This record gives sequence, C-alpha cells and structure tokens, in this order.
Amino acid sequence: MPNQDAVRAVLDQARADGRQSLNADEAKIVCDAYDIATPDEGIATNADLAGDIADDLGYPVVMKIVSPDILHKTDAGGVVVGVDSREGAMATFDQIIDSAKAYQADADIKGVQIQQQLEPTQEVIVGAVTDPSFGKLVAFGLGGILVEVLRDVTFRLAPTDADQAASMLDDIKGAEILDGVRGGAGVDRQAISTLIENVSRLVDDFPEISELDLNPVFATSDAATAVDARVLFDFDPPAPRFRPSHDDILAAMTRIMQPDAVAVIGASSGEGKIGNSVMKNLIDGGYAGEIYPIHPKETEILGRQCYASVTDVPGNIDIAIFCIPAAFVAATLKQCGEKKIPGAVLIPSGFAEVGEHEMQAEIVEVAHENNVRLMGPNIYGFYYTHKNLCATFCTPYDEKGKVALSSQSGGVGMAIIGFSRSAKMGVSAIVGLGNKADIDEDDLLTFFEQDPNTEVIAMHVEDLKDGRAFADVASRVSKKKPVVVLKAGRTSMGARAANSHTGALAGDDRVYDAVLKQSGVIRAQSLNDMLEFARGLQVLPTPKGENVLILTGAGGSGVLLSDACADNDLSLMSMPDDLDAAFREFIPPFGAAGNPVDITGGEPPTTYEATINLALNEDRIHSLVIGYWHTIITPPMVFAELCGRAVEEARAKGIDKPVVCSLVGDVEIEQACEYLMDRDILAYPYTAEKPVAVLGAKYRWARAAGLL
Amino acid sequence: MPNQDAVRAVLDQARADGRQSLNADEAKIVCDAYDIATPDEGIATNADLAGDIADDLGYPVVMKIVSPDILHKTDAGGVVVGVDSREGAMATFDQIIDSAKAYQADADIKGVQIQQQLEPTQEVIVGAVTDPSFGKLVAFGLGGILVEVLRDVTFRLAPTDADQAASMLDDIKGAEILDGVRGGAGVDRQAISTLIENVSRLVDDFPEISELDLNPVFATSDAATAVDARVLFDFDPPAPRFRPSHDDILAAMTRIMQPDAVAVIGASSGEGKIGNSVMKNLIDGGYAGEIYPIHPKETEILGRQCYASVTDVPGNIDIAIFCIPAAFVAATLKQCGEKKIPGAVLIPSGFAEVGEHEMQAEIVEVAHENNVRLMGPNIYGFYYTHKNLCATFCTPYDEKGKVALSSQSGGVGMAIIGFSRSAKMGVSAIVGLGNKADIDEDDLLTFFEQDPNTEVIAMHVEDLKDGRAFADVASRVSKKKPVVVLKAGRTSMGARAANSHTGALAGDDRVYDAVLKQSGVIRAQSLNDMLEFARGLQVLPTPKGENVLILTGAGGSGVLLSDACADNDLSLMSMPDDLDAAFREFIPPFGAAGNPVDITGGEPPTTYEATINLALNEDRIHSLVIGYWHTIITPPMVFAELCGRAVEEARAKGIDKPVVCSLVGDVEIEQACEYLMDRDILAYPYTAEKPVAVLGAKYRWARAAGLL
Repeated sequence: MPNQDAVRAVLDQARADGRQSLNADEAKIVCDAYDIATPDEGIATNADLAGDIADDLGYPVVMKIVSPDILHKTDAGGVVVGVDSREGAMATFDQIIDSAKAYQADADIKGVQIQQQLEPTQEVIVGAVTDPSFGKLVAFGLGGILVEVLRDVTFRLAPTDADQAASMLDDIKGAEILDGVRGGAGVDRQAISTLIENVSRLVDDFPEISELDLNPVFATSDAATAVDARVLFDFDPPAPRFRPSHDDILAAMTRIMQPDAVAVIGASSGEGKIGNSVMKNLIDGGYAGEIYPIHPKETEILGRQCYASVTDVPGNIDIAIFCIPAAFVAATLKQCGEKKIPGAVLIPSGFAEVGEHEMQAEIVEVAHENNVRLMGPNIYGFYYTHKNLCATFCTPYDEKGKVALSSQSGGVGMAIIGFSRSAKMGVSAIVGLGNKADIDEDDLLTFFEQDPNTEVIAMHVEDLKDGRAFADVASRVSKKKPVVVLKAGRTSMGARAANSHTGALAGDDRVYDAVLKQSGVIRAQSLNDMLEFARGLQVLPTPKGENVLILTGAGGSGVLLSDACADNDLSLMSMPDDLDAAFREFIPPFGAAGNPVDITGGEPPTTYEATINLALNEDRIHSLVIGYWHTIITPPMVFAELCGRAVEEARAKGIDKPVVCSLVGDVEIEQACEYLMDRDILAYPYTAEKPVAVLGAKYRWARAAGLL
Repeated sequence: MPNQDAVRAVLDQARADGRQSLNADEAKIVCDAYDIATPDEGIATNADLAGDIADDLGYPVVMKIVSPDILHKTDAGGVVVGVDSREGAMATFDQIIDSAKAYQADADIKGVQIQQQLEPTQEVIVGAVTDPSFGKLVAFGLGGILVEVLRDVTFRLAPTDADQAASMLDDIKGAEILDGVRGGAGVDRQAISTLIENVSRLVDDFPEISELDLNPVFATSDAATAVDARVLFDFDPPAPRFRPSHDDILAAMTRIMQPDAVAVIGASSGEGKIGNSVMKNLIDGGYAGEIYPIHPKETEILGRQCYASVTDVPGNIDIAIFCIPAAFVAATLKQCGEKKIPGAVLIPSGFAEVGEHEMQAEIVEVAHENNVRLMGPNIYGFYYTHKNLCATFCTPYDEKGKVALSSQSGGVGMAIIGFSRSAKMGVSAIVGLGNKADIDEDDLLTFFEQDPNTEVIAMHVEDLKDGRAFADVASRVSKKKPVVVLKAGRTSMGARAANSHTGALAGDDRVYDAVLKQSGVIRAQSLNDMLEFARGLQVLPTPKGENVLILTGAGGSGVLLSDACADNDLSLMSMPDDLDAAFREFIPPFGAAGNPVDITGGEPPTTYEATINLALNEDRIHSLVIGYWHTIITPPMVFAELCGRAVEEARAKGIDKPVVCSLVGDVEIEQACEYLMDRDILAYPYTAEKPVAVLGAKYRWARAAGLL
C-alpha cells in the first residue's frame, strides 16, 4: 500500500513554501512512498560529508546539485557522473557548488546529492501529465534521443491497470529494443509496467501533481530504477466540469432523442424563416407526436394550434426547438424549466463561436438551474429517423437504418446528410453538436448505447470538452457497438508550453490517438473514411476469426488487395493443403491457388460462383475479399448477380461472414456495385483500398471489443 | 582521384583465392583508395607486436580478429574495445586468438587488427547493395538500434552526386540527431556526404562489389571515419538487359504508338472472337489509317481486303496486332521482321504468366533478331486517342485528352478505362504492358516525353524489369511532365536473403520509394489516388510558389482542410496584415481572417465571389483551396456558377493558379462538383482530403522538377 501520508506531508510543505516543484530529496520521499525504485543516495552539505556518503555507496557515483531554484541542473554545471574516488567526490562537491553559484548567484542551494551510478540495459522515460480535457495521463517512452527526436512515446489515462501499463511497452515503435538488441539482455518488463502503474496511481491520488518526469529510468534485466525525478504541481486546478449521473443523462437523453411532444419556439408561417423550415420538416417528415408551435401573436401555424409560451401548452413537452435570436434564449429557457422540458435544441448562433462567451455561459447557467439539457447552440438540429423526427431547418431525411452520426460542425453535418442520402445509408440519428455548451459526445453515447435502433456510432469531433468522461463512456459502449471518431485538428494543435518533458510530448495529437485506442474507438483519418466506415460497419457481420481470403479474377487486383490487407493489419490466411486442392478443382492449371486465389481472367461465371461458394462454406475462412475483373465472359452484372446469390444462400444457411468486393472494369461495374450494395454486400468500383479499409475497421473494432 | 589500380589488385587477389569477401587489411586498402577515412591501425601477429602497435597508436585501442573465415567477429569473441595499456593489449591478443580458435578450429587466422578507439558524436552506417532491378544503390542511416530496430535508412542510385548524397542526411526520420542533441555538437555533414559519394563511386567503378557495409561510421564534428568495413563481391553477375539506343527506341515507339497502317493478325468475322473485336474497335473507333486484316483463308473481313500474311500486304505496316494463339506467335513474328514492321502488339496469353517461360524467351529472341519490338504478351492492347486508335479487344474509348496511362495488369487497365470514362478524363493513350517481355515503362516514357498530346503520365507497375533504365528516363521526363507511379506489391516483397546489413535493409519497399523519389516520380499509394492524380494533375496549372490559402464557408471544413494540407506537405500562407484587412472587408466581424479565411456559413453568393476574386487576383497567394458549405442562402449550383465565373475571368486575364474545391452538403453538391469539373476546376463532394491530396501531388512534382 502506498504511503499517502508521506506524500501529503511533502506536498503540504511545498504548498506552504509557495513552491511549484519538489527538491530531489522530497521527490525521493514521494517515490519511496509509491514503491518507485530510486538509486541509493545521500545529500552532502560539505565536501567531507560528500566523501563519506560516496564511500558508503561505493564507486562510481553521480553527483547533482540540490536547489529549488535550479530546474535544469545540467545547464548549471550541476551534474557530474563517473566520480570514482573519495578525493574525486570531495573535489566534485566544491566544483558543483561553484558552478551553481556562477549560474545563479542567489540560488538557494541545499547541498549536493550523491547517488549510486547504475549501468542501464536501456534508458526509458516514465512520466505523467495533466491534459485539460483528459486529466491525468501517464506516459512511457524510450529514453535519450529516441524520445527526444523521434518522439517515440505513448500515453494512457491514469490510473492504469496492470494490463494497460504492460500494453504501453508494446505500443512504441522501438518496442523490440526492450527485448534486447545485438544479443544483449532484455529489460524487466514487469518492473517497468509496475513502475508505470505506481506512477499512474500516484498522480491519480494527488491531483495537484500536474506533471511528473522519471527521466531517465534505468531499465535492467531485473529492475527499473528512476534515476532522476521531477515533480511539478498546480494547487489551483480548474474546477471539474459538471456531469449529471448516468441515470439522469439517460433519462433526459431518451426523452430528447425520442420525444413524444415537440415545441417549436419561434415557429413561423413565413417562407424561408428557420422557424418555418423546422415546422415543415417536422410535419413533412411524418413525425407522429405532438407539435406545438410557440409564437407570442399567432394562433395557428401550418394548421397547428399556436401558443404564446411553452407554459401555456396543456400537455407534456419533451423538447423545445429554439428558432429565436440568441438574445432571447436565456429568458425562454427559464420557461422551459418551469414547464419541466428536459431538452432544448438551440439552433441559433451568436454565442461562443462569435466570441459571445458570456452569453453562452449565461444560458448554461440558466439551463443548469432549471434542469434543462442544451443541444448546441449553433447547430442545424437533429434527426431521429425511427420517430420520423426531423428537428432541423435542413431538408427532411428518411432513410431509416442503424447508424447514428454526430458532428461538431454544421458543414460536416451537411456532408453527412448528403453522403447518407447519396449512398442510401440508413441512419438512426444525425445530430449537430455545435458549440457543445452542454450535451456532448458522451451524452449521445450514453443514449445510443441502449438505443435498439442504433448499431454503429460515428462522430466528427474537433475537441472533447471532457475527454475523460468521453473515454469512460466510449470504453464501455465500444464493447457493444462500434464507435468511429474523426478527430479534426489533428495537425494544428501545436505544442503546448510545458515545464516537463512529458508535458511537451503530450502537446500533440498522440494523446488523442492513444486515448481513443485505449477506449476501443475506431479512429477515421479522413471525412470520407468516417462516412464509409459508418456505412460499412453496420453492413459487415462481425468476423469469427482473423483468416482473410482474397479471391480474384485478376492477378493485378490480387496484388493491390494484398497490399491493402497489409496496410490494414489484416492477416492473409495461409492456405491449408486440402483447401488449396479444393480451389484448384475449379481454376485452370495456370491459375494460382494459395492466397490470393487467382481464378484468372478468362473464367466463366460458374468458376466465380463455385469458388465464392467454397470460400463462404469453409469455416476456416473468416472473411472474404473479392477482386472482380470485368470480362466479356463474366460481365459485371452477371458477377453481381451470382455473388449476391451466393451470399444470400449462405446467409439463409446461417453463414454470415464479412464479404467485401473491389470491382475493376468499364463503367458497367458502377451499376454492379450498386446492385451488391443494395444487398448489403460492400462493393466499390475503381479502388482496391476502400473495401479493405472498411473490413480493416471492422477487425479493429472486433479486436478492441474482445470479440476476436 | 581514386586509386583504382589498388582496388583492382585487391579484388583480383580475392578472385584468384576464390573468396567472396575482403579481409580487414584489404578493406582498408580499398577505403584508402577512395578517400574513405578509417582509424589508424596495424595488424599484429603476436602479442609483443600487439603491444608495440598499441603503444604507437596511443590508448585506448580496439582489437579485432582478422580471418577470412570469420565474418561475424563479435560472435567469435573476436572484438575487444577499451584496451588501455600495453599489458592489456598483449593479454587481449592471446585472448582473441584463443576465442577465435574455439569458435572455429580450422579458421585461417591472419592476426589481430589494432585500431585507435575513437569517440563518436554519432554512429552512422553507410553501405552499398546491388539490387536486381536498380543495380548499385548506396545506403545511409543512423547507427546502432536506430537502423537495426527502426530501420531508419535511405537509399540512392549509385553513383550519387554531392547534392543527392547530402539530401540523404535529411531523408531519415532521425535527421535532427545529426545536428546534435542535448546541446551536443552536430556532425560534419560535409564529411558524411563526401563519404557517401566516395562509396557510391567505388561500387559504380567496380561492379563486382555486390555489397558493402561501413558500420559503424563514427561521425564527429569534423570527420566521418569508417571503423569497420565489410566488402562482399559477386564475380559472376547476371548479364545486363538489352537496351536499344534512345533514338532507336523513339523511332520505333513513335511508329508503334502513332501508326499509319495496322495489320490484324488473326482478324476474324466471327462475333465474339478477339480478332473480330479488334477489327471492330479499329473501324468503329474511327481510325483513319490503313487496316489490313490477316487471315490464311479469308478474302475480306468487315469490308476490308484480307491478306494471307503480312508479307503479302502491298504498303508499309507500322504495327501488327496479334490475335492468334501463343504457339503461332514466334513464326509470325519472323514474317513481321521480313516486312520490317517495327512493333508487334501481343494480345495472346499463354506465356510466362502461366509458366511458359521458354516460349516467352523464344519470342523475345525472334523479335530481337528480326528487329521487332514487342508490346505484351498477355495484354488488352492499347489506345492512342489522338489517332482514334483502339488497338484492343476491349470497348472503344474516345475521350481525347492529355493523360497517358499504362498498366501491367489487365484488371487495372480495365479500371483505368472505366474510371476515365466515368470521370470524363481525357486521355492521350492507355497501354497494357502485361508480361513486359520487351517494351516496358521506360520505352513508353521515351515516347510520351516528346508526344505533344501527352502532358501527364500515370503508370501502374508491379515490377520494373530494368529499374535503372526506368530511373534514368524518368528522371529526365519528370522534369518536363509529371510522372505518377502506383507501385503494387509494396508490402509483399519480404526481406531478401543477404549477407550484409545494408543488403538486409534493402529487401523491402524503401528502395522503390527512395529511387522513385530520386527520379522525381510522384508515387501514388493506391489505385484510386493514381487515377485521381492522373485526372487532376493535367487540370491544375503549375503553382508559382508555396503559399496556399484556404477559403471556407464552414469552420469545420477549414479544420479538416488544414489537416489535409499538413498531411500533404503544403504550406499554409501566413497572412500579411494588409491582405488580412482586405479579406475582412468582405466577411462578418465574427468571421476569421488569417488562414483559413472563414467567411462563415450565413454569407450570400457575393461574399464567396468577392473573396475568391480577391484570392485569385492576389499575387502572394499561389494556390487556393475552397471549402464550400451548402446553405440556403448560397446553394450549391449558385456557388458552382460564381466560382466557375471567377476562375474563368481570372484565366482570361492570364491568372492561372491551382484552385481545388471541397464541397460539403446535401446531394446537390454532386451536380455542382460536376459543373466545376467540366470547367477544369477540381471539385469533390463529401471529402476534404481528396482535393488537397491532388494539389499536394502537383506541388511534389513541381518541387522535384525544380519549378518551385
């Protein structure tokens, strides 16, 4: 058990002194308290004592200045290594003190630390940092130039468990190095992961520790010893964001997303007005619940009775859709509270996105006080197709399906709507999150998790206001349903100012990358990938194993498909002899069995059909990638029909494995792809990469969810 | 000047001895001859001599076994470092000899090499390897685990010039390390590049040196010293591939690609026969030259007089298109030779691709003897649109344009045809290369280089039979016209067996990557990228500078477009104050100038038009990326029309800078993209990445061609 009292005492003293970092001796107390191994050492206040301590430790020793005013000890001439005698230790003491004074005349010098000099097998770095969105993160990387130049480092949310900590050792590019290079011994992996776990627990237990560097940690074949520790703190952290309980979120979100009664505040009969478009979309979209137009003067709008205020409406209301200018929102929210409406959909812009931060803060406060959840502001609204609900000023959307999508930006939202319509992608919901003053991705995930109409969730994210909450919810939800995230702003984050090494390393996209991966989220690298993954993941069944087979009519396609499989971490099945023989029965002698199975370009439809059937009915093949080549003997629509038939026959027998197709040929293949897509078989023209990338996304999800 | 005689003598001796590698002392002679610095050293044959040599060199010294039978000296206990006294040197001599004998009792031991022990600032590796396709390559990487584990190494064709050698230092991931880390000194870049250049000249001068490792090279702030050298050779290299002269290639290829008279061997009236499809495509395609059907028995086919043999045809013939079985090809090729036909288009399959290597070798020999160039075999044929020539059994293709495409695989060829037709991509030629028994990519490049109808060349390549010839020609052609290459089989090459370090590192895709880059070729990573680059590069004018501006109606698109710019090495212009002020005149106060310029979503068409005009007319902006967002106030077609108008007006004024558009919105944006594409403005729906990737490809080309 860690000695929390010891750490508390050290931190209290530092706080009382008004310091922002710990001395070496204090850092050692902290390390000892959390079982973080450090070299044996002592602190000398004069040269004789330096000689005594060094004699006790044995030679060689390392000597370092101890001063709260000197953070960068090397720059101050405050570190000497390889001191190998008593005389040396005494002389070095004087030298270090002189250098430190020359570096900063008024520095408060506590003495010189004298440490055992260890011989590392490998230097590594373990650290912790506080991310404004994700909170405490623990970091691991290889030491020296590997971390400094190649930035080969990985992160996890703190605290980590033993498995997560151990996985960090495999997650860096130079992972092999830990197993030993040039015949040398490997490091003690267990010792390093325990160290990581202890550090993660320390920063979790003491939130005021804002940054921590153990750099270097000397890893040997039987230990991991923190040779230098830097601990920084922040005794005045920002207040945590308010989060309702899970049950409260779910109760409110369920009424918001599946409302039985909707009020339109600022409803209008005037063509072209937002309040008119929203009314029309609700009615034309076929929404069967109550629709209450709210307007101070009108009595009827689009055939519906109009009320002056939500408080005048006789029945319950689940959501109020705001189509009024920003300045009137706060006052109207109070009425929503009075009426006990759980959600307000804030279409109006004019808040934080145009610099009106105060006005946004005001509506958040009013909403919180009145127990109203806010969607937006600055959004297009949202769709929930299974209620025929188009709570938006955009066009109605009615292709029902199993994908829920959200976007932080209206532009991306429109791309989602257009793509979904064009690709005939059935959706359950499309939600604009805009400024995310209140409702954000984790609220949506909490709802979609239990929504029977949603099987895949795809989200466009620019920033996560509360990354920690997102990670918590996403980790749970992604075990049940694939969660795809397009994180925009990958490359523009720049490095944040930071006083620690770990802090500087955390200032870029790799924190998002590590946390999304840790949460089981499938990260899309582009808008188009997000959309295609959303469409494809709901269509593909979950594979039962890692064996992928490529079946192709064109050797050239087979090569491109193999490249794509490697790029997407898919395993080409190594072909068993009996199965190889079975395929060879159908293909010409000069065709290639093995994997890819190349049936060659001159083959009739029967060859395609026989080999596809063989692959579908063979249990050892878990996923099938088909590369069709347009020929006169097997034209595109003939292929599409036979392929569709084979898959449907297999499905009828209860065999449902992922099948993706790449079609190359003249323009007729576009129609063939459409035919296959209509039958829930993923098929793309003029590309080998796209179908395999979607299959790869399905595998990434299945692995992260523990299904493979 | 290198001392070639000294190297020749050493190699001759090794050859006479039947050895495949050099001893340390021989390697030193080779290094000295090419000004490759090595540590001072001597070879001791007894312990006393070891002491004398070490005394002369000064301590510490490194001692190494010298034996032609021991390649892996460390494994044999044959390397001891840090020997720091005469007594130590003498004892170490005995120890090394004992270890070597224990390792291999019958080893021929020449003595022990004693070297100065240098202190490197950084270890690097310089090497050379012989690639079966590219010939001699020189390699450079960082030493130690960086090269062994992270494989951080780069290649160039040997010999390199000074610039190419220097560029290798910037080409590795850890390039920064060479400038010094942790406040340390940087290396002597000039010394390293000179070393690379000398190595590259050495292996070029002596083709029998098959592999060479200088590992480690100790790089310091004023020198680069090869501490260990391994030299392997192959005195029996494969014969170089036959290459006609440039003028012969061009003369033959011009007649082949732009023929005035075509013979169809195996022409047929029988519906569904290849010889019938080819005849129809020639006639229906509108080919205006002479068409001579060749058939032993027919007198007329499709209204054209038929001949029994090409030798019976009265006039000249430029190409003979073969539509006969493989077995009859060789004999008919002889007749082509007799008739002095420069080219044979070999559609038939049944050669090397089905294992009939001998039959393929035979036709190559016959063709060579008879001075006939071969296209194929095993191809769909080719198209040359500006002659209305469809020399293929596929469908006619008639969208004339400036892109020439080739494919090694028929499947990919069909994808090219389908995509080109669907995307209305004008092409000059589409060529199937199939087995590449003779005509290959460099023959095509030689023709396209001077073809006035071709401005962009895109090639699908599985292997380059003569990578060196390709690189030579591509380096020249890519200076004039963009050359795009999709190299299939990226990930399946695996590591080749090799005896040297450099050899093992060369056994993967990074050789292709480095050589294609060195040749100024734009590498496409996917089939779809190749096709989109081909379409886009001919449309985009060459940018006059690096300044890219993003102009967007949706902040969210701006973020995605910025990500894409960073991914594609594009420089977002930093906005000058005066220009910022000029944009601000048109956009709302809460819009963002800077870059991206965010005009915000509520703006009317006039704002789009004014800001686009400003960007087009501003000389400091070299390329424009537009992110359109579908709104009611500026619908998609309204945007398309104003954007088209602005660009066309600018073009009329002689302003032609690259403009690419990303359109997000409902399905109407698809029509808007088509409208813009028809006006040679690249526009894509539902993606931020594709337009920027194409712009990035144009920049890559312009930089490599020295135009930026």
